[in-house]
Amino acid sequence: MSSLDSAIVYAKEHQEEFLEDLISYLRISSVSTLPEYEPDMQRAAKWTADQLLEFGFESVAVMPTSGHPVVYGEWLKAGTDVPTILFYGHYDVQPPDPLDLWISEPFEPQVRGDNIFARGASDMKGQVVAHLKAVESIIRTSSLPINLKYLIEGEEEIGSPNLGAFIQENRTLLSCDLCLNGDSNILAPDTPSINFALRGLAYFEIRLQGTAGDLHSGVFGGAVDNPAIVLCKLIAGMRDEHGRITLPGFYDHVRPITDTDRVDVASMPDTWWLEQAGANVLFGEQGFTATERATARPTLDVNGIVSGFTGEGSKTVLPARAMAKISMRLVPDQRPEMIRSNLEAYLNSKAPPTVTWELEQLASCQPAIVERDSDAVQAAKQALAAVWGVEPVFTRQGGTVPVIGMMQEILGVDSLMLGFGLPDDNLHAPNEKLHLPNFHRGVETYIRFMHESANKSS
Amino acid sequence: MSSLDSAIVYAKEHQEEFLEDLISYLRISSVSTLPEYEPDMQRAAKWTADQLLEFGFESVAVMPTSGHPVVYGEWLKAGTDVPTILFYGHYDVQPPDPLDLWISEPFEPQVRGDNIFARGASDMKGQVVAHLKAVESIIRTSSLPINLKYLIEGEEEIGSPNLGAFIQENRTLLSCDLCLNGDSNILAPDTPSINFALRGLAYFEIRLQGTAGDLHSGVFGGAVDNPAIVLCKLIAGMRDEHGRITLPGFYDHVRPITDTDRVDVASMPDTWWLEQAGANVLFGEQGFTATERATARPTLDVNGIVSGFTGEGSKTVLPARAMAKISMRLVPDQRPEMIRSNLEAYLNSKAPPTVTWELEQLASCQPAIVERDSDAVQAAKQALAAVWGVEPVFTRQGGTVPVIGMMQEILGVDSLMLGFGLPDDNLHAPNEKLHLPNFHRGVETYIRFMHESANKSS
Repeated sequence: MSSLDSAIVYAKEHQEEFLEDLISYLRISSVSTLPEYEPDMQRAAKWTADQLLEFGFESVAVMPTSGHPVVYGEWLKAGTDVPTILFYGHYDVQPPDPLDLWISEPFEPQVRGDNIFARGASDMKGQVVAHLKAVESIIRTSSLPINLKYLIEGEEEIGSPNLGAFIQENRTLLSCDLCLNGDSNILAPDTPSINFALRGLAYFEIRLQGTAGDLHSGVFGGAVDNPAIVLCKLIAGMRDEHGRITLPGFYDHVRPITDTDRVDVASMPDTWWLEQAGANVLFGEQGFTATERATARPTLDVNGIVSGFTGEGSKTVLPARAMAKISMRLVPDQRPEMIRSNLEAYLNSKAPPTVTWELEQLASCQPAIVERDSDAVQAAKQALAAVWGVEPVFTRQGGTVPVIGMMQEILGVDSLMLGFGLPDDNLHAPNEKLHLPNFHRGVETYIRFMHESANKSS
Repeated sequence: MSSLDSAIVYAKEHQEEFLEDLISYLRISSVSTLPEYEPDMQRAAKWTADQLLEFGFESVAVMPTSGHPVVYGEWLKAGTDVPTILFYGHYDVQPPDPLDLWISEPFEPQVRGDNIFARGASDMKGQVVAHLKAVESIIRTSSLPINLKYLIEGEEEIGSPNLGAFIQENRTLLSCDLCLNGDSNILAPDTPSINFALRGLAYFEIRLQGTAGDLHSGVFGGAVDNPAIVLCKLIAGMRDEHGRITLPGFYDHVRPITDTDRVDVASMPDTWWLEQAGANVLFGEQGFTATERATARPTLDVNGIVSGFTGEGSKTVLPARAMAKISMRLVPDQRPEMIRSNLEAYLNSKAPPTVTWELEQLASCQPAIVERDSDAVQAAKQALAAVWGVEPVFTRQGGTVPVIGMMQEILGVDSLMLGFGLPDDNLHAPNEKLHLPNFHRGVETYIRFMHESANKSS
């Protein structure tokens, strides 16, 4: 039996143990955004590092940052003829709120049918564990065919504020030929796919201040402006009724969708989008499919807005302040810094003298793309085809993985997105789940990807 | 000495006793909104009723409602040739928070200079006691020249939720020719004034629902609409950039401001509004002064808005829901039910098919006006002029007193606003105060008002 086959047999024989390990990882409520979960963050980091130690990795460490630590480990015994791949993942998860909408507890994983339900199951502890178990399967039966490094961070769900500095400070340690990013998904349980492009992100908080303090709307209504209305008008002016962004200059650097893209890249039908979104009707820029609008076109969303009294009943307040969180998803060759300039220019020209405004950039990430004919993409294609028995399709992803921009900018390497979540996994929402058959297929795919990557270099 | 003069002399000789009674009333922490103050609510009601019993009023009772009780009492021996006046007041007060901003304890009244500081001093125990002491001054020296009823409620500060039902059920008992509402103020210590008009109120909550649940803005942004943006666009379309309300039909029944109004009605300068509001710049409909805009013109304010994630940091949610609390202040002859129709028609025509909407009316009150040449206003004018030595000015009030709408709708009577608070009395805020010279002038004004009201009918 080849070393590849031995590893695959090992993986199939250890599916129950793999699931048990996944469950123990999911039980750790490693919510990065809330300070009270700090001890759980430490536990999750240690859990991850312990796995690498168990596999005989070297230089394994829970490395401090200004925020949550990064888990690092390396296995570099495959020689200089094969590539060094850096696996990127994150051990932190989103907050579980609203708790009352969960069918089972977010941090008490429950298997129901083909799925396991827990916060972080798909995003992305399930993907991290799949890769760890691929490594385990190879290491317990032979030896890794490539050199491998792990970088598992704890701040992805809060925008990776310290990761750039970490990569910068450790750029020799992290040097590699390719980043394999497991924070990804395939199109459907029986439709393997490769994400070759991601959208970038520019995320802002806009704060308006009108009068010095809240006022009584009966006494002062009509005499002074209302910052909540001002904010609504500013936001209303950012997008037309067809979903086209009307910030001046917003589309200036958008790379057009080509005819080849339209042939090569999978597109989900509107019925799929309707069902996934739980929507009665879709919406967006005319002349593009929903898939194109959500992956290859830039967008603007209000992620949050608040002003005045929002409790039960009627309080007649004329609010002094209004705040909105507004984010834009960017596509090549937009850049977050240009978008910030667009937005500042817009606010400078449109905000009335009745308010003062502050603009804070909460997150920023370049859009990314990997060419479809590269070795990495071809290796992934062959691995997926072998496991699923069908050719994978190419997809673009609408979301943003900040680390991909950092890998490109600091380490100078492309990132291949290869993960096994599904679009209906309820990421960032109640009842997050992971499809278990895909989890196990993911383990095999990662095993095969390592072998194919070694073959490509020989 | 005339009976009027005797009463005025009595009042002057008993100023210290009047103040002592006011202090004993202010010591009762009758906060209607907080259940723990329930015993104090009972004590305040009893204190009020005991005063009326002491003056020989009849049918004095602390009458139950579904909430806090109403104090009632009547004195109907003046005969059928003179009017029956219903004095409206309330014995409840706002909560005293934030406590740390009070210089003296909110329920330990303290006289400093010309003012007495205590929660409820101006709003409105000071006004209730002023009227009680006017009655005492007349009754101890002669006999009331008019018929008088008292309705002192305990739920004004929580929106008078049970008062409408109470008035409805007791409409024969409460029948009268005029309601005298003491919950009011004058412009400045040496500027007596009569509020002859109040704005009405139509207060709504609009709830939009987009998709079934919150989504990830990276995955779904561009494919579906964003209800927060939809809500912003709907709100933006309700008002133009000059503050004019653009809801169709909104101004249809607005009674214009006449040239006579502009001569007769007092107007505060912009500097006053800027200072009171803590604003850098005023704002509103062109062609009107700030005073007109805030008192004699209708307005629309967003009192609250919320959607999505509003905590610290960046959560990339595409919200499923958005909510706004929107209220309109109304002037004669607008009616809240017409405004609701305007708003419903607007939402029906403008809300896109990407959202469903619900409209809930949280509060509703007719605007009110008493003609300036009516007997009641003329009696008040003469009383104020005699006490202050200057002609009172006419004012309109921008706020809403729900009971005035109820008196009009259920009892069919106008309400005259006549009270002696000041605009800087810190109502609903720390260090609420009452100007004591005005309190004593208020007693005399109420004495004279009763005599003038009797004279007008003869």
